[in-house]
Amino acid sequence: MIYSVIMAGGVGSRFWPLSRRRNPKHLLSLFDDEPLISETINRILPVTSLENVIIVTNGTQAPLISKAYPALQPSNFLIEPVGRNTAPCIGLAAVKIRKADPEAVMIVLPADHLIDDIPEFQRCIRRAVEVASEEKCLMTIGIPPTRPETGYGYIQRNSDSRGEPKVCTVKTFAEKPPLATAERFLESGDFYWNSGIFIWRVDEILRQIEEYLPELYQRLLEIESLGDSPQSVKTLRRIYRRINNISIDYGVMERAEHVKLIEGNFGWSDVGSWEEAYRRSKKDNSGNAFLGGHLFIDSKNCYVNSPKKLVAVVGMEDVIIVESRNAVLVCSRDKSQDVKQVVEKLERMNAKRLL
Amino acid sequence: MIYSVIMAGGVGSRFWPLSRRRNPKHLLSLFDDEPLISETINRILPVTSLENVIIVTNGTQAPLISKAYPALQPSNFLIEPVGRNTAPCIGLAAVKIRKADPEAVMIVLPADHLIDDIPEFQRCIRRAVEVASEEKCLMTIGIPPTRPETGYGYIQRNSDSRGEPKVCTVKTFAEKPPLATAERFLESGDFYWNSGIFIWRVDEILRQIEEYLPELYQRLLEIESLGDSPQSVKTLRRIYRRINNISIDYGVMERAEHVKLIEGNFGWSDVGSWEEAYRRSKKDNSGNAFLGGHLFIDSKNCYVNSPKKLVAVVGMEDVIIVESRNAVLVCSRDKSQDVKQVVEKLERMNAKRLL
Repeated sequence: MIYSVIMAGGVGSRFWPLSRRRNPKHLLSLFDDEPLISETINRILPVTSLENVIIVTNGTQAPLISKAYPALQPSNFLIEPVGRNTAPCIGLAAVKIRKADPEAVMIVLPADHLIDDIPEFQRCIRRAVEVASEEKCLMTIGIPPTRPETGYGYIQRNSDSRGEPKVCTVKTFAEKPPLATAERFLESGDFYWNSGIFIWRVDEILRQIEEYLPELYQRLLEIESLGDSPQSVKTLRRIYRRINNISIDYGVMERAEHVKLIEGNFGWSDVGSWEEAYRRSKKDNSGNAFLGGHLFIDSKNCYVNSPKKLVAVVGMEDVIIVESRNAVLVCSRDKSQDVKQVVEKLERMNAKRLL
Repeated sequence: MIYSVIMAGGVGSRFWPLSRRRNPKHLLSLFDDEPLISETINRILPVTSLENVIIVTNGTQAPLISKAYPALQPSNFLIEPVGRNTAPCIGLAAVKIRKADPEAVMIVLPADHLIDDIPEFQRCIRRAVEVASEEKCLMTIGIPPTRPETGYGYIQRNSDSRGEPKVCTVKTFAEKPPLATAERFLESGDFYWNSGIFIWRVDEILRQIEEYLPELYQRLLEIESLGDSPQSVKTLRRIYRRINNISIDYGVMERAEHVKLIEGNFGWSDVGSWEEAYRRSKKDNSGNAFLGGHLFIDSKNCYVNSPKKLVAVVGMEDVIIVESRNAVLVCSRDKSQDVKQVVEKLERMNAKRLL
């Protein structure tokens, strides 16, 4: 059996003021089409049936996701009591899947990425499922980099690649690099962007969690033994609170031995910031991109997202402007990562209305 | 008798998106206090009684002004059927005043200026009234320039000044100059900003209009002979439509002989743009000014006017941001004159909701 685990617990605070606790990034229609999570579900359905899709999210977001994608059933959801990064999230899904099929392959997908070439994506996933299933390795999709991006992690491959799409073993993982390093990575030709998409057998990932994150594994066993009673929900919350915040990359992938990379040539982006939303938007002759009301005078290379109001931009260059119900963002394009700081500041001010 | 004629027919489109046809600049509270027109009325009341205040405006704005300043009576209003610049507006007020007192002195004041030192302003006006009354000259207030402003007209004085505040004859009027010229004017020491505030006897200004704008004078005589019947209103509209658009500066002041300037040392501004609103606002340590919700990150010398929404500004410098009911302006500070172009574009689009 093949399961798809879609991680949908984050807010995506770099997309403030559109992203909010009750309107996370994966529910946004950044390009005037479907919410990102709906696209994520739809493009995996030719590989997994909808019953085998598991959305890992929290209690606030689950009803919102249901509303955005009405075909989802309660059984499609796995609710984390609190967010603890990707390792616990993946572990939680893995123990749930193990109950149904200990030899199942699970595909782990972030809910909020963009993919251009969907048939190629599906071809890549199918080959990854084959390899993971036969070779019992941890597969990760590496994206051939097209620019010295400092906002992504990188993966260096060994030169043992074979097949199409290429599969090879992994030499090392690298965290988000400074620009000079990113440029070196790009030139070297053997570094890939870490897409955060994983494919593995459920028994294999749990074996690796047991080895490298034994404490987490113990908690997962406790959770596995819980029933569905209200008491169990309370116990789950108590257990989950004690779990450490750790990513699957740091906790498992960087240490495990049987890690393989498959090359993803399908046009990928994690749309990590307004800058990237701009980069992927259609532009007019002056390089301006827009969604909603706009009027540019003597302005170029700007991004306007304002579904409800006219935004007039006069004499500006390289600016991001986003209008929402109760807040407006005006941000220099090269500072779009710092939007996170706005959210952090609002959190410190406890400005709930704006979070 | 002394009359004050307050010209309040304009929209002040450089203050879009706050200024609108139904919310003109002089009704805005740009500094979180009273509307500009209320301040204009209040500061002239020690010189003229409220009965002798005449607001020249249009049918759309009159009820709005009444609401903003409830002590005004219908007799305080003079309604222009269409706007025809300052010469017809002043002529219309002059023939109305002549009916009551042909030797009255009239003070002409734009509704939307800012004055810092009100007692000094009143002292200046009182002396101007004396001189105008005794010498039958056309008085204009000149403001000693403090910077090479290119947004104002200039007046060059002769060196025959006398008294305090200084009164002197005028050598020449100069239109809004390019920067190099404005710098020369500032250095020369004998140029003043043209405040657009005038003081003269009503018989004198009408004599000058008769001489230099005889066609306008004929129309004014026709209007003077009209009664108050509904038929008269219709006739007034028909006459007014045929009047040429001409300013009092261009039509009379630049040509008349008995023009005198009185120096106005009371801290004056026509607040002609958002840039000037910024310049006159209190600033924080980073040079940011704001009215309403704001959150600055790594930003300086910005202006935010947003009574209803939080505006987060990230990595920006020298930007004006104004949030209104149905539109947002993001404008480079050095392009604040071009906000007018937004309004012109909206007019061509016939976007009434936004005008």
